[in-house]
Amino acid sequence: MNVGFIGLGHMGAAMAQNLIKAGHRVVVFNRTRSKAEALAAAGASVAADVAEACRDDVVITMLADDDAVAEAVFGEGKMLAELSRGALHISMSTISVALSDRLAEAHRKAGQAYIAAPVFGRPEAAAAAKLFIVAAGDEATIQRCQPLFDAIGQKTFVVGAKPSDANLVKLSGNFLISSVIESFGEAFALIRKAGVDPRIYLDILTSTLSSAQIYMTYAGLIADEKYEPAGFKMSLGLKDVRLALAAADALAVPMPVASLVRDRLLAGVAQGRGDSDWSSLAGLIARDAGL
Amino acid sequence: MNVGFIGLGHMGAAMAQNLIKAGHRVVVFNRTRSKAEALAAAGASVAADVAEACRDDVVITMLADDDAVAEAVFGEGKMLAELSRGALHISMSTISVALSDRLAEAHRKAGQAYIAAPVFGRPEAAAAAKLFIVAAGDEATIQRCQPLFDAIGQKTFVVGAKPSDANLVKLSGNFLISSVIESFGEAFALIRKAGVDPRIYLDILTSTLSSAQIYMTYAGLIADEKYEPAGFKMSLGLKDVRLALAAADALAVPMPVASLVRDRLLAGVAQGRGDSDWSSLAGLIARDAGL
Amino acid sequence: MNVGFIGLGHMGAAMAQNLIKAGHRVVVFNRTRSKAEALAAAGASVAADVAEACRDDVVITMLADDDAVAEAVFGEGKMLAELSRGALHISMSTISVALSDRLAEAHRKAGQAYIAAPVFGRPEAAAAAKLFIVAAGDEATIQRCQPLFDAIGQKTFVVGAKPSDANLVKLSGNFLISSVIESFGEAFALIRKAGVDPRIYLDILTSTLSSAQIYMTYAGLIADEKYEPAGFKMSLGLKDVRLALAAADALAVPMPVASLVRDRLLAGVAQGRGDSDWSSLAGLIARDAGL
Amino acid sequence: MNVGFIGLGHMGAAMAQNLIKAGHRVVVFNRTRSKAEALAAAGASVAADVAEACRDDVVITMLADDDAVAEAVFGEGKMLAELSRGALHISMSTISVALSDRLAEAHRKAGQAYIAAPVFGRPEAAAAAKLFIVAAGDEATIQRCQPLFDAIGQKTFVVGAKPSDANLVKLSGNFLISSVIESFGEAFALIRKAGVDPRIYLDILTSTLSSAQIYMTYAGLIADEKYEPAGFKMSLGLKDVRLALAAADALAVPMPVASLVRDRLLAGVAQGRGDSDWSSLAGLIARDAGL
Repeated sequence: MNVGFIGLGHMGAAMAQNLIKAGHRVVVFNRTRSKAEALAAAGASVAADVAEACRDDVVITMLADDDAVAEAVFGEGKMLAELSRGALHISMSTISVALSDRLAEAHRKAGQAYIAAPVFGRPEAAAAAKLFIVAAGDEATIQRCQPLFDAIGQKTFVVGAKPSDANLVKLSGNFLISSVIESFGEAFALIRKAGVDPRIYLDILTSTLSSAQIYMTYAGLIADEKYEPAGFKMSLGLKDVRLALAAADALAVPMPVASLVRDRLLAGVAQGRGDSDWSSLAGLIARDAGL
Repeated sequence: MNVGFIGLGHMGAAMAQNLIKAGHRVVVFNRTRSKAEALAAAGASVAADVAEACRDDVVITMLADDDAVAEAVFGEGKMLAELSRGALHISMSTISVALSDRLAEAHRKAGQAYIAAPVFGRPEAAAAAKLFIVAAGDEATIQRCQPLFDAIGQKTFVVGAKPSDANLVKLSGNFLISSVIESFGEAFALIRKAGVDPRIYLDILTSTLSSAQIYMTYAGLIADEKYEPAGFKMSLGLKDVRLALAAADALAVPMPVASLVRDRLLAGVAQGRGDSDWSSLAGLIARDAGL
Repeated sequence: MNVGFIGLGHMGAAMAQNLIKAGHRVVVFNRTRSKAEALAAAGASVAADVAEACRDDVVITMLADDDAVAEAVFGEGKMLAELSRGALHISMSTISVALSDRLAEAHRKAGQAYIAAPVFGRPEAAAAAKLFIVAAGDEATIQRCQPLFDAIGQKTFVVGAKPSDANLVKLSGNFLISSVIESFGEAFALIRKAGVDPRIYLDILTSTLSSAQIYMTYAGLIADEKYEPAGFKMSLGLKDVRLALAAADALAVPMPVASLVRDRLLAGVAQGRGDSDWSSLAGLIARDAGL
Repeated sequence: MNVGFIGLGHMGAAMAQNLIKAGHRVVVFNRTRSKAEALAAAGASVAADVAEACRDDVVITMLADDDAVAEAVFGEGKMLAELSRGALHISMSTISVALSDRLAEAHRKAGQAYIAAPVFGRPEAAAAAKLFIVAAGDEATIQRCQPLFDAIGQKTFVVGAKPSDANLVKLSGNFLISSVIESFGEAFALIRKAGVDPRIYLDILTSTLSSAQIYMTYAGLIADEKYEPAGFKMSLGLKDVRLALAAADALAVPMPVASLVRDRLLAGVAQGRGDSDWSSLAGLIARDAGL
């Protein structure tokens, strides 16, 4: 397939590369052009602007946040104006439910198709084409995109016909991770204050409760109090939990643990930890305990 | 080894049986005598009272709660009075840090040895001798008990010289499980209210976040809203989170998620769900959301 | 002074009337025209549209929420377009800090003046010209408005040069009230479950803790479980606590009690209590306690 | 009346003095004897031990906490043993519901009478005989004590026949104060971070929300960040909120704000603020906000 690809951060660059490897023809665009040119060697065409990445029938966006996506879509020379009627926007970024709804409506009015397909997995999983894709939108359209998803990930889940449901699921996943970090933070503060060795405690948790890599990665960081460099910045974690709460508010679903974690992350950012790994909220918990 | 074994519930009966299988000579006692007699066929001697189970040099207790342990230990004809000097009490029940400290002190004064060795694992793991044992106390004493632990579990962790540290670790583990249930409850309420299929969501969580059996068992119960029959009663879950908070209070460690889960479990018990599975707190969350 | 007045709900109508009584010439506008005409007898001129209420040098808005204010200000024929250069907009509604900042910027660009002056007090206080006015913005401008404030209220507080600071103070006040309602709800659930008479308890609170009318009004509603008709709707309470939290989020100030109350109010709205008095959150607390 | 009085702290000494002033004959006992002797000049007889203060038909205890009361009551030569049959113990200390129940039962078995009558009011109110007394227990017995209460306080509330209900009401009152401190702490952090003058904000709160002295005293301390010397120590505040939560737990009443405040106070104590005024929890909130 011929695909435009906008957004070449850690995740996006790896995804675009895997699309090329799988034989798709990819036109890439990135605001910082050097990142796009790095992909030229792999066989990508480099677009000079968003418009040039919108000549094909399918364009993927994989950008940092709501603002970046809105900037790429709305306005003169941007996606909504440049995509042809019938063309498809696949939004793979972690964005808000509200923006996803707005995109669905805007594309519909413009005679364009839109599906949301955010991904689960860290940069290494993206590099290994082992992402999990959570897609929502028109079923036939999603099926048509399956070759693209297969090039990027190991499995695609379809959660419904409303695109923003995929974004909701993605945000809820990040909420769940954040809540486990908070709980680990509390448990480690408890056992550390009693004088138990955090590494032994980590072994116990790994054996008894969960060998799940994502959780244990964070438990390890907390056991070692190793919050730099950030794998996922606290400021970004705050953003995602905020978006989960915004979606919950719109649906009238009280989520007290999400509120609590939001307040904790907000405290972290207020105290200058915004660029630390979000697991550094465990450091705040330890300090509360006088450790 | 010759061992007394007091407390033959689901967990204790399986553990005693595995001790016998491994070649140890076991004298069992249970308040409801029929449960003890069920083990006679497997080769156990049945004690008529606590005192009779205290003739050997090692006695294991595996009882429901603090009250049951205190009743077996303190008072005329009970463990403290009947164990000989130099004999060892291995407390494997999930009890409070405070009671464990009290037991340590009482046995010390009586010239008896005491270690705490609570277990992680459900009845099936107990039956399969696949428990994880978290032990604390005098190191040489723990080493001496290793043949017993090997008969019961797949691995023993030693967390320190203070027996109650093992109880603290055990309680913190149950707190972690309870916090995951709460977070799952919130996440499922969110996606259900949006209209996403809970079974698809469960598949996504299992693939992307955690294949950890213990967590996914609870996610499955929540997805299916299947809170009866109870695998672990809400009233018992409340008890354990209470004990974790009591230990945290004594150590001056604020644990806000534990407080939140405690309040949720308390609400469940107040509303008559004490005998439902503790994952039924997700039902309270769903109702809060108007589902 | 010659004043335009937009928004004639319970509060606005009383305030406009008091301006007239004090000798000011007032041109009133309300979307539902009948409410404006009710004031004609008192001496008000009735404007046919927003534009007609913007002929004078000072225009007051006293509207229900952000949307209503934004609708009155932005767009063709609305305040921003119709006010002359140098004219002043006094925003007395309870609106968000973000909208107030946006209004300040928009009026500045249009060469118009803007101050925020939200009020504390219920409709009866508005009728009696006993409101408290919290004003922020250019100091000379606020001084110039003092005759208007004197006609409406018993006291004016100036909190700074940035208009939205007045809105922040107003929102924080509503948060404080909401938090007292929550705490009363918890305390009443506690003593009711113990069997103590709520009316005796109310007497004790009134004597010992607070004779403050606003608090005791709510304690009385909770003691009597009298949540209908609403003095202040739960849905409006939710809106205000949400705005307080949004402002806190922007300033990076964690407010866990505000989060907790927000979640409680959200639960109330989710369960169909949006039109009840916001003190009916005490009913949710009582139900949690199994009462 | 002839009265024994045990416990001569700030509150107790003032209360005993007022009893003497009103013409009652008072035998006082205090562990630190010098405090008892200070009252001899006022006309008190000084008892050498608890037993000597138990010769009369009525003995009042006004002690620091559960431990102090238990020590005065149980054991050889203490109240339970020394009071004659038919004598009355009036417990005016702020103690737990559980201990009050235990006292009621123990005195009943000993053929002695027991009522609980904790007080609201600070040392100045005690000195001025302006306390509020919340009494519970046998109605005729309470009526018989009215002359004593009249000498000490300005009003007596009778909340029921079960003595510990009075303790519950007292504890709920201290919870309410603590929750107001927490909410004020959050509100002040918010407006301070926005740059609003805390003293102006305090004026606004006093005018608009509450002139209640107890609340405004705390708001003033928070506005001035003046947490030393302590009017009421954080460690004592923690103790009382803990007792309120213990009572709530026993009644199965979830009190999430109480849990939150407990965690905050625990953090304060863990960080070495136990001897500061409990309003210093506002300092923790401010620090969380990066102030």
